[in-house]
Amino acid sequence: MDTQQARRFVLGLMDVSPAAYLTTIGPDRRPYTRAMLNLRNRKQYPRLVELFAPHNEALLIYFTTNTSSGKVQQVRANPAVCVYYCEPEKFHGAMLGGDVEIVDDAKVRESLWQDGWEMYYPGGPNDPDHTVLRLAPAFAQGWHGEGSFEFRVSE
Amino acid sequence: MDTQQARRFVLGLMDVSPAAYLTTIGPDRRPYTRAMLNLRNRKQYPRLVELFAPHNEALLIYFTTNTSSGKVQQVRANPAVCVYYCEPEKFHGAMLGGDVEIVDDAKVRESLWQDGWEMYYPGGPNDPDHTVLRLAPAFAQGWHGEGSFEFRVSE
Repeated sequence: MDTQQARRFVLGLMDVSPAAYLTTIGPDRRPYTRAMLNLRNRKQYPRLVELFAPHNEALLIYFTTNTSSGKVQQVRANPAVCVYYCEPEKFHGAMLGGDVEIVDDAKVRESLWQDGWEMYYPGGPNDPDHTVLRLAPAFAQGWHGEGSFEFRVSE
Repeated sequence: MDTQQARRFVLGLMDVSPAAYLTTIGPDRRPYTRAMLNLRNRKQYPRLVELFAPHNEALLIYFTTNTSSGKVQQVRANPAVCVYYCEPEKFHGAMLGGDVEIVDDAKVRESLWQDGWEMYYPGGPNDPDHTVLRLAPAFAQGWHGEGSFEFRVSE
């Protein structure tokens, strides 16, 4: 599997993975993982497919979360994260690593917003407790069922 | 959800999670996640249910992997890991954190061994490339669909 094939494999997995597993490093230097909404899942978020399309080469990831959450505190102190996508029944997995950024742009918050999220963020997309995280991964690695792959995303 | 309820919730999730997501810290101090066989999955590994039963209070985890793998190198240098179990469609997730150990005990390797693993370890359970990792977690945290929980495992 060459880098182009591996990139397509990773994109295909991001399209269908039921969740995205985000790992941050805590103040105790230990890893902390939790499932996040996979906004690249095409069935779950069909309206976002076009938003991601121009950034597919970069494998761009967005997360939406509570500003008050532990993970936001953690990434403020240490932006090193990884995100894992998986179809366990097929033994397909891909990990993307890099430094996550906190996006302070109302347009991005509004463009990601989905009906029903008022339940989590009563003030809407620009509720102060609504934070968007963005990861433009630096590297990818994973397993495609028959072997492993690894590439720099900028390659 | 009190600690006993949370512990039962975590055990229930370990029983059914299709994979266990193991995160290690690399020499670059970044997190690395990959899916591992969830040997506590009762449907997939019915013969191991009895092996784990006496260790349910401790939420004990075993992994089996290649000695030559990157993760074994990583945990030798830094044993801090977390393991995540998940049913994404139910928004159920649990993370167990602690220091992982490399188990150098032929009996444990043999008791975990499953038919067919010769494909990965041609020499059988005591193939030098077969390593067993054990995590007796120090703490647990997660989300049970309606709220979060957190507890010290020794409590």
